[in-house]
Amino acid sequence: MTRSLEVKTDIEIAQQCIMKPIDEIAAQLNLEKDDWEPYGKFKAKISLDVLDRLHNKQDGKVILVTAISPTPAGEGKSTVTVGLGQGLSKIGKKSMIALREPSLGPCMGIKGGAAGGGYSQVVPMEDINLHFTGDFHAITTAHNALAAFLDNHIHQGNSLDIDVRRVTWKRVVDLNDRALRQVVIGLGGPIQGVPRESGFDITVASEIMAILCLANSLKDLKERISKIVVAYDYEQKPVTVKDLEVEGALTLLLKDALKPNLVQTLENTPAIIHGGPFANIAHGCNSIIATKMAAKLSDYVVTEAGFGADLGAEKFLNIKARYANLKPNLVVVVATIRALKMHGGVPKDELKQENLEALERGMENLRKHIETIKAFGLPLVVAVNRFITDTDAEVELLQKLCENEGTDAVLTEVWAKGGEGAVDLAEKVVSLIDEKENNFNYLYPLSTTIQNKIETIAKTVYGASMVEFTIKAKNQMLQFEEEGWGKLPVCMAKTQYSLSDDPNKLGRPEGFTITVRELRPSIGAGFIVALTGDVMTMPGLPKQPAALKMDVSENGKALGLF
Amino acid sequence: MTRSLEVKTDIEIAQQCIMKPIDEIAAQLNLEKDDWEPYGKFKAKISLDVLDRLHNKQDGKVILVTAISPTPAGEGKSTVTVGLGQGLSKIGKKSMIALREPSLGPCMGIKGGAAGGGYSQVVPMEDINLHFTGDFHAITTAHNALAAFLDNHIHQGNSLDIDVRRVTWKRVVDLNDRALRQVVIGLGGPIQGVPRESGFDITVASEIMAILCLANSLKDLKERISKIVVAYDYEQKPVTVKDLEVEGALTLLLKDALKPNLVQTLENTPAIIHGGPFANIAHGCNSIIATKMAAKLSDYVVTEAGFGADLGAEKFLNIKARYANLKPNLVVVVATIRALKMHGGVPKDELKQENLEALERGMENLRKHIETIKAFGLPLVVAVNRFITDTDAEVELLQKLCENEGTDAVLTEVWAKGGEGAVDLAEKVVSLIDEKENNFNYLYPLSTTIQNKIETIAKTVYGASMVEFTIKAKNQMLQFEEEGWGKLPVCMAKTQYSLSDDPNKLGRPEGFTITVRELRPSIGAGFIVALTGDVMTMPGLPKQPAALKMDVSENGKALGLF
Repeated sequence: MTRSLEVKTDIEIAQQCIMKPIDEIAAQLNLEKDDWEPYGKFKAKISLDVLDRLHNKQDGKVILVTAISPTPAGEGKSTVTVGLGQGLSKIGKKSMIALREPSLGPCMGIKGGAAGGGYSQVVPMEDINLHFTGDFHAITTAHNALAAFLDNHIHQGNSLDIDVRRVTWKRVVDLNDRALRQVVIGLGGPIQGVPRESGFDITVASEIMAILCLANSLKDLKERISKIVVAYDYEQKPVTVKDLEVEGALTLLLKDALKPNLVQTLENTPAIIHGGPFANIAHGCNSIIATKMAAKLSDYVVTEAGFGADLGAEKFLNIKARYANLKPNLVVVVATIRALKMHGGVPKDELKQENLEALERGMENLRKHIETIKAFGLPLVVAVNRFITDTDAEVELLQKLCENEGTDAVLTEVWAKGGEGAVDLAEKVVSLIDEKENNFNYLYPLSTTIQNKIETIAKTVYGASMVEFTIKAKNQMLQFEEEGWGKLPVCMAKTQYSLSDDPNKLGRPEGFTITVRELRPSIGAGFIVALTGDVMTMPGLPKQPAALKMDVSENGKALGLF
Repeated sequence: MTRSLEVKTDIEIAQQCIMKPIDEIAAQLNLEKDDWEPYGKFKAKISLDVLDRLHNKQDGKVILVTAISPTPAGEGKSTVTVGLGQGLSKIGKKSMIALREPSLGPCMGIKGGAAGGGYSQVVPMEDINLHFTGDFHAITTAHNALAAFLDNHIHQGNSLDIDVRRVTWKRVVDLNDRALRQVVIGLGGPIQGVPRESGFDITVASEIMAILCLANSLKDLKERISKIVVAYDYEQKPVTVKDLEVEGALTLLLKDALKPNLVQTLENTPAIIHGGPFANIAHGCNSIIATKMAAKLSDYVVTEAGFGADLGAEKFLNIKARYANLKPNLVVVVATIRALKMHGGVPKDELKQENLEALERGMENLRKHIETIKAFGLPLVVAVNRFITDTDAEVELLQKLCENEGTDAVLTEVWAKGGEGAVDLAEKVVSLIDEKENNFNYLYPLSTTIQNKIETIAKTVYGASMVEFTIKAKNQMLQFEEEGWGKLPVCMAKTQYSLSDDPNKLGRPEGFTITVRELRPSIGAGFIVALTGDVMTMPGLPKQPAALKMDVSENGKALGLF
């Protein structure tokens, strides 16, 4: 395969792709006429009835793609996910990809899409990166409608005795808008409502986003929504959506957003793009419904989780898999030699030079993630996402180091070659699923305490020596157990750049303490968030936003999107 | 036709309708495969290329539906619009309907849809009243992205010297949310932006909504967006979108929203539902592109304008028709005997009793609107939207009174009978268009001053004796003429309940003065708003929002929507 890549951007590659009409993709999956609805010519929503109809059909194998701790060098986890799905198609397997929907805010802010790259992309990429099928807008609207109902309740007499100083439900926009982080609302006198402090998060940080991604059905969605805690009353008792009696209206607003979206890759492999919760204050995976649907419609599903394996994979396995009653068949850990050299101490501008010592030091990071996957009892393979500057000696060393761990490391060239560049990986994945033992287990039982759950994750997954809890966090643990929330899984909010809670400690830090500062109840989503540092839930725009270069031609073609 | 109507609600009637698949509706209009894209099975977006392709095809006749000044008795303007479109189909004419998209906020707040009623509705009504094809969400996003870019510019050094006290661009949500009317944003210190006062409007009040509805093409859309005034600098000079260099990105966000949406009525008459600007601070009509597209695809287009003829029809004719270069063929003025009796002084709970004197007094309101349409040089017909309590004597009197004005008054029963109930009206409409002279003219030339334009509207359309301008408005007129904005049309913001600026003066008030308090430049949309009173641009929710009764069944059917 020889392609001249030097001059092509992701959007140029994407726009030159010959997409199949979506009815052909649906037919490829044996979907019947009433199983799906078109959204334009290259997108569709799949009916949830399909899950019922195929209830007794055996599920396809689920392959989770995760990565080493991310660095500015780039790992290409989404690109490998798409490339592997294409590679499985290339070797004759009926495969699908399940990915998160990207958020509009970062797209307008910093250059970069979230639908793969090069010749391993999901298309139509303009649509996927802009409004897509409107799911995020529906979530934004439901979230803000709840806020409006809440403030209206307070304004109209406040019969629930909501303490306006203890309203925890904020508003959201799917934009990077720092000026909305902290606001005062309800100004202007008695006709305009009750003044109070509040703020806006980005839509992907909405608890409704997490709920949509963890719901197994429309009924489950409504039940979870009804449990959302929006405020506390004057006796500090939680006030929920059920108390406001609007769970029906909010579910109505989300009835179409819950249906998974069908698209395709550049090589016409079917892909479901659905849901996109934050990977820190939420669990960072596409929807349960998307993954389950893909497993019903194909023999191999490739899906991914946010950030490195310490965050994304841990949450996929302890939270999503548990709520979905889903047993993954294999984990792919993506690494690049560049990124491992950064973990080994090389600065970004020296990554092009061969450095075997740094690679060996950086291997420590990968080794910890391999151990984590093994702790879950799952078989795994390392995918080395090859860069042009990687030397043969470096590749050979990395493969040898992985071999020492009893793990295969397979080279991929998915950016430049698409599915062809992942054929070796695809073959290895198929054989490992058949050959290796799978003893999947959760790292903790739900019955244990919040404190035990956090300590288990911190010690087993991060490699921490101990966990400290602030007085606030300790009091919250007591309070949460009293409220009956103690049996929920824990969702860790920690920097993605380090295994520790200090973003500067690359590689594999040791002997460190994790400090849990605060807990937040996401009772609708069904987890307790444990904050180990400041979490930014509303990004800002850079001085020169990517939007400055965006445009649309007179005939409607997107320009400068990437 | 006998139907038992007593127990059926609008949504029940709508959900029992047998809709045709949207490809059949498109085929009915001779649309080719690439002319449209499906959004689900019963909605489509029509490509703007169709307008170019059919450039030389003769336009269909355009019928504008307007009404007397609205009262709590109800007039049923949208229902007559849909019914007339169906009636034209019934008599064998190739007809289409062009309507505004309803806003989600009022739908969640107060019971009531905006897609007709009874057997004269546009369907699928749940979709139309909820997210539809996402146009309003795209407008909300573009509007708020502009706000984010603006605040980011201020935060990142403010090289345009924007005076933070003089930022006029607010944010929007498509919800009724009074707590957001007045807010303080940018709190929290130097990292969170620059604190300033601001607020939120409902999306339909966004200037971007008005722009989308007045644009003739994607190019025109971008040009208009670039002219939006978002703030003033320290020298009080206007700062525009062009100065911020984001017109390309904002147009990109709107590229699909600009395409008109194809749906159908209960009787499968094709309908375009597209755009929905406020009828006070904006012009209150569906998009120019929708009306033009419908005129290319059919022989008769029935469209409507917001509120009574003093507001909606005046703006349709002086603003929309001018920017569209469109000559309407006939005006239908909708009236009900109930509403005319209210204009004649009868309280709402006594409307069921025959009252010929009150009807004759109330006729004054209708007479003024008839005079207005005649002043535009257009032929017209009065549609009497019949209620079960109207007596024969009342109907006879109203027809005689209209005859005295040289105007036909035709009875319709569109709510109960659908198109069948508008056959007489349809026949009259067709014959009047053929027979009557059409001397359409704008009421004022663009070349005259802002003051002259306002005085012309107030005296000719409202029947005012004089117009007073506050000192603020006088200064603004000077300033606006200096900025070069004096040649734009004027968009009046006045109470819809009275011909005067006092909502309590029903019927036909005389000898009154209109007070213009303030002007607002909507330079992107292309008009100067003249405010004659307080205009509510963010509604609130009632004590018991309609949302409390909404729900969705486990199989995804909307419940309690209307």
